[in-house]
Amino acid sequence: MTRIRVINPNTSPGMTETIGRCARTAAAPSTVVTAVNPAMGPESVESHYDEALAVPGLLTEIAAGETAGGAHAADGYVIACFGDPGLDAARELATGPVIGIAQAAMHTAVLLGRSFSVVTTLPRTTGRTWDLARRYGFADACRGVHACDVPVLDLDDPGPGTVRTVTEACTAAVNEDGCDVVVLGCAGMAPLAPTLARRTGAQVVDGVGAAVKLVESLVSLGLRTSKGGEYAAPPSKKYAGLLGEFGL
Amino acid sequence: MTRIRVINPNTSPGMTETIGRCARTAAAPSTVVTAVNPAMGPESVESHYDEALAVPGLLTEIAAGETAGGAHAADGYVIACFGDPGLDAARELATGPVIGIAQAAMHTAVLLGRSFSVVTTLPRTTGRTWDLARRYGFADACRGVHACDVPVLDLDDPGPGTVRTVTEACTAAVNEDGCDVVVLGCAGMAPLAPTLARRTGAQVVDGVGAAVKLVESLVSLGLRTSKGGEYAAPPSKKYAGLLGEFGL
Amino acid sequence: MTRIRVINPNTSPGMTETIGRCARTAAAPSTVVTAVNPAMGPESVESHYDEALAVPGLLTEIAAGETAGGAHAADGYVIACFGDPGLDAARELATGPVIGIAQAAMHTAVLLGRSFSVVTTLPRTTGRTWDLARRYGFADACRGVHACDVPVLDLDDPGPGTVRTVTEACTAAVNEDGCDVVVLGCAGMAPLAPTLARRTGAQVVDGVGAAVKLVESLVSLGLRTSKGGEYAAPPSKKYAGLLGEFGL
Amino acid sequence: MTRIRVINPNTSPGMTETIGRCARTAAAPSTVVTAVNPAMGPESVESHYDEALAVPGLLTEIAAGETAGGAHAADGYVIACFGDPGLDAARELATGPVIGIAQAAMHTAVLLGRSFSVVTTLPRTTGRTWDLARRYGFADACRGVHACDVPVLDLDDPGPGTVRTVTEACTAAVNEDGCDVVVLGCAGMAPLAPTLARRTGAQVVDGVGAAVKLVESLVSLGLRTSKGGEYAAPPSKKYAGLLGEFGL
Amino acid sequence: MTRIRVINPNTSPGMTETIGRCARTAAAPSTVVTAVNPAMGPESVESHYDEALAVPGLLTEIAAGETAGGAHAADGYVIACFGDPGLDAARELATGPVIGIAQAAMHTAVLLGRSFSVVTTLPRTTGRTWDLARRYGFADACRGVHACDVPVLDLDDPGPGTVRTVTEACTAAVNEDGCDVVVLGCAGMAPLAPTLARRTGAQVVDGVGAAVKLVESLVSLGLRTSKGGEYAAPPSKKYAGLLGEFGL
Amino acid sequence: MTRIRVINPNTSPGMTETIGRCARTAAAPSTVVTAVNPAMGPESVESHYDEALAVPGLLTEIAAGETAGGAHAADGYVIACFGDPGLDAARELATGPVIGIAQAAMHTAVLLGRSFSVVTTLPRTTGRTWDLARRYGFADACRGVHACDVPVLDLDDPGPGTVRTVTEACTAAVNEDGCDVVVLGCAGMAPLAPTLARRTGAQVVDGVGAAVKLVESLVSLGLRTSKGGEYAAPPSKKYAGLLGEFGL
Repeated sequence: MTRIRVINPNTSPGMTETIGRCARTAAAPSTVVTAVNPAMGPESVESHYDEALAVPGLLTEIAAGETAGGAHAADGYVIACFGDPGLDAARELATGPVIGIAQAAMHTAVLLGRSFSVVTTLPRTTGRTWDLARRYGFADACRGVHACDVPVLDLDDPGPGTVRTVTEACTAAVNEDGCDVVVLGCAGMAPLAPTLARRTGAQVVDGVGAAVKLVESLVSLGLRTSKGGEYAAPPSKKYAGLLGEFGL
Repeated sequence: MTRIRVINPNTSPGMTETIGRCARTAAAPSTVVTAVNPAMGPESVESHYDEALAVPGLLTEIAAGETAGGAHAADGYVIACFGDPGLDAARELATGPVIGIAQAAMHTAVLLGRSFSVVTTLPRTTGRTWDLARRYGFADACRGVHACDVPVLDLDDPGPGTVRTVTEACTAAVNEDGCDVVVLGCAGMAPLAPTLARRTGAQVVDGVGAAVKLVESLVSLGLRTSKGGEYAAPPSKKYAGLLGEFGL
Repeated sequence: MTRIRVINPNTSPGMTETIGRCARTAAAPSTVVTAVNPAMGPESVESHYDEALAVPGLLTEIAAGETAGGAHAADGYVIACFGDPGLDAARELATGPVIGIAQAAMHTAVLLGRSFSVVTTLPRTTGRTWDLARRYGFADACRGVHACDVPVLDLDDPGPGTVRTVTEACTAAVNEDGCDVVVLGCAGMAPLAPTLARRTGAQVVDGVGAAVKLVESLVSLGLRTSKGGEYAAPPSKKYAGLLGEFGL
Repeated sequence: MTRIRVINPNTSPGMTETIGRCARTAAAPSTVVTAVNPAMGPESVESHYDEALAVPGLLTEIAAGETAGGAHAADGYVIACFGDPGLDAARELATGPVIGIAQAAMHTAVLLGRSFSVVTTLPRTTGRTWDLARRYGFADACRGVHACDVPVLDLDDPGPGTVRTVTEACTAAVNEDGCDVVVLGCAGMAPLAPTLARRTGAQVVDGVGAAVKLVESLVSLGLRTSKGGEYAAPPSKKYAGLLGEFGL
Repeated sequence: MTRIRVINPNTSPGMTETIGRCARTAAAPSTVVTAVNPAMGPESVESHYDEALAVPGLLTEIAAGETAGGAHAADGYVIACFGDPGLDAARELATGPVIGIAQAAMHTAVLLGRSFSVVTTLPRTTGRTWDLARRYGFADACRGVHACDVPVLDLDDPGPGTVRTVTEACTAAVNEDGCDVVVLGCAGMAPLAPTLARRTGAQVVDGVGAAVKLVESLVSLGLRTSKGGEYAAPPSKKYAGLLGEFGL
Repeated sequence: MTRIRVINPNTSPGMTETIGRCARTAAAPSTVVTAVNPAMGPESVESHYDEALAVPGLLTEIAAGETAGGAHAADGYVIACFGDPGLDAARELATGPVIGIAQAAMHTAVLLGRSFSVVTTLPRTTGRTWDLARRYGFADACRGVHACDVPVLDLDDPGPGTVRTVTEACTAAVNEDGCDVVVLGCAGMAPLAPTLARRTGAQVVDGVGAAVKLVESLVSLGLRTSKGGEYAAPPSKKYAGLLGEFGL
């Protein structure tokens, strides 16, 4: 049994539920998925500001996974927001592996062909996406980042207009970039993956499912974040004020 | 049930058996591993020449996987030689995903820390290893490639001297390069992974197990090589002479 | 008159005072430096975890600068921690330019020669330093990152032993890397810059002073963060729980 | 006298003849060109599969060049297929230098201007072309790869329609990419080079001629593949089955 | 008081006057700007040939700055031509810092957003601009180089047609490249910066002003070119013929 | 008959003679080598300053080659100084191809193996060498640059001590860097190439010979610098003062 804590870093329970459902669809029968979101922070992540302020809550959920017992204990974690917020900090805190969904989706995409393009929500997030592609080593493989200008929360129970808009962005990505694979650039798009794959004929990768499989794989292989240096547990120290409870 | 054909591209059945055992150890209970090696080609792969000539036999085994029925049918493939020989060609031929063990090991290593080093067999293979690290996007993450000057076939049922030599190379990699993770640069080293992890205290990644998990993951997610362009089935044409049977 | 808000993102007032003093030494006579630290967060930044949790407090101080009047109003900002925490988010929030001290120090160093090396505090921070060098475009120019294994708070009023340790790390950087310039990798090292320059004979760049000059320059040229896309003000939305006050 | 063995790795004698003619046109009067093709393998190379399976025959021809006497002995080799198949393996086997025509064409193109574009045959080969541009160091110099969707064997004695199609692709490359030089991405295009140069007004580089000149140059300078490490003669070992004759 | 020698490397006094005016506008009240041009060399720099031949005169002006006394002495230098001609040589010769305007403009632009595009004069100069972007580390940040096909000297007292042409090129850069910032690719465009910023709504960076601020900053921080290696004073030796006076 | 003008950009006739001898040794029997040096400029090139001031004289020699008739006419040019001074400007001026010896040596070296190291004269020139390796695309292939601290003119008729010093630097390059090939980083080392190859057992590439072969090859293939854009003839204009004669 592998226990994976899938953390939606925003505070919208509806989106957490959706993400949890997609994670469970991808998970092996023997995997227990606990989908959670923090009690603090933004209701959606649509800016660097939101992303930065989603991290404290995310870290609270990592800490909770470390101390939880039974089925809610965590052998590994998924950060279910395409900016992979707080990934490095989460790795310091967690005993088991931690995977971001942008990381997972890009890693998966390059196994399916020579190139991928990302379809994301707001135009202002494309810079962050390129940043991640570069950091993960996939700057050459990433052919384009296409924003479909849909706010994140519109993806929760999307109407046909929203689905059409995302489909068109995927089609444009394939045709304009000549890419082999489409990567969905928002956890909220996860439920659309099968529809988009069918409509575009392309391989479409959703990071939530991809991340669940990577965590299952690492746990099963007995591998976890290297704790010998950069990702060792953080030095303990005093934290002040509103964030006082974060002191280790 | 996922059926994975693990292909040892050399013609040494002992090594195939070892690789198969390691693949099965990594595989999920519901996965069926078929470990095979071609009937043609070199008994070990220790040069570009060997690697090039291991490919026809490898492709024969891909073709066999495509036409096999029952438990020997293949939902996906592992190429179990660290140079990832014939990966692009195999992808054209196969319906399901194909993963090389260098690719799998490097992909897995970068999920565990910021950097890895590779411990390989003969010094002459280090150039190829750097080539792959660059192609896969991990040139920055790869800190070093350490050859322990052990011939490939000596890794089949290795004596204590060989184990010591490989252990020392792993320790040197960690200490000299300051890397987070050690990647084993030969399928024949797979059985040593637990021992090396214990002795060095580092995360040690064996590509055979890593590749099995990646294929399981892709198959489970319903993903396969994009067939829309570069990796479409090869155009059919006449093949001459000794290789006449390879015509499609 | 240029008004610069220099934000020490940790909660140690002693360090804020030191940083303020160094900033004022570097500033033009007509510049007003307001050195502050947040009321919330870690007393020092020595891990990804600390860095992530220093950001909410930092953003509070950016917001305070935006609404302050008179001499405490801010024409621009300095983030005085070498990891440049929260830089992107701060830029979204601020009207005027925002500069991180790692960014400033590296930008300044490459104007003085072909290469620089960074002398930092704890070994675990070297990965982040390389990350920043890559993001800012200076991966080729950065020849090495040397940790002197001194905790950040030991740099506040350092004894002769600490000064000697840092000096030795600078000398090692120059000799081993053959670099033209030494970059000090911690705001707490700022007061040591003149001493280190004298003892090593090298050009030594402290990011606090460098950042003050860059902000002065941008303000004087009438330039500020481009607000047309990625760095536009964040979309307003609800924030929950402990971080409820961060809603815009 | 320099003796160059120009190997067409496919098994179409018509194309070998054409390549030989172009090679002789480029060669110095004192150079003897032996144009050959293997007796085994694909009649044209239009996929990774074809390319992989062209290599055994190519290596047979390298081996033949090593043992041939008199005018058919080889001081150096040209691999006359734009994917440069088997280049690394051939270098291990050969005493003299070995040059691929993609390598030769790209090396030559960057001596004529800042940038080049490649005009190739089938769209599915563009990925391989970019791969080679990256490996040879010319990723920045290569501005585009344009497929004209002409099967390789149509280039043997091409009709006016084919010539027009290739001309249009060259013109598009120059106009859209603003490149200085056009590189012909198939050995079969070699005879068209003068026509294309005249019609487009651009410098047009054919790899067959370029490779012949590079081999002549290296031989004349007394240089050959470094044999001290990666490209030393392959370790001898047993080869099984259909490829048994390849054992060294 | 900081004394900056701003060197227009061409021999057109009108342009020198314009550049001096822009430099003084950017300079702090306590800065003394001496704007000069050499007595030898081309009247404008529009080719590699012009650029190379502008360097001797430029170096004469550096040497003059080194020996001048009083208000014409130089604490630092600006090379006011967008190709940054002779920058390395000037650094060897000068005691104080030397900044090129392409360098200054690009450094400044990346502090204002994630990306910039350059608007330059003649199409033939775009290659050099990309060269500089790469050398300075900004190849990823530079999204495009747009030539507006205006000869350099037309920018001296430009008519409304010229202003319109440059404005259109700036607008095209913003719209086509999605860049955050426009960099003006010629010293002669400096006076147009405010107009272009107003008309395009973008942040527009003129290198002359940017360079003045960087030199002021470095001088104020007590920093100068590292003299320990590559940029040490040139070895003295005999110079022959027309350039005999350049011997050191 | 190919007529190649080999230009030693310094003003030392002894070195010109040596370079001419080496060029003729490498040249085909039907090639006429004219070895010249300018009448103006530095007696050796050992700094950026020297390099910049060697360019006017170099360009004079290019211009002379363009107008010369008979055997002194130039079908192509070699710039025989390892910094490749004035290469871009020379290409604008020349009708035929122009090759620098660093460019030629690096291009040749990568055809002989996976990597090379450069052995150069003064330590201060290593930065320029890396610059060129990056520009030509060989940053990955270049493993090291070793200065042997020998002044350029000491290489003219070198004593046994100088030869020993250079030999030791070559040996160190091979052993420390594990490179396949040694590139000689100064035209003055050309006569030592055979000795160094014999003593080190490595492939040793001298740029003078390599450049001669490349020019011969390009001329023979009917190729020359692309004149459609960046390298078109420079716009004609007035030149002032000492350099008045350079006006076109």
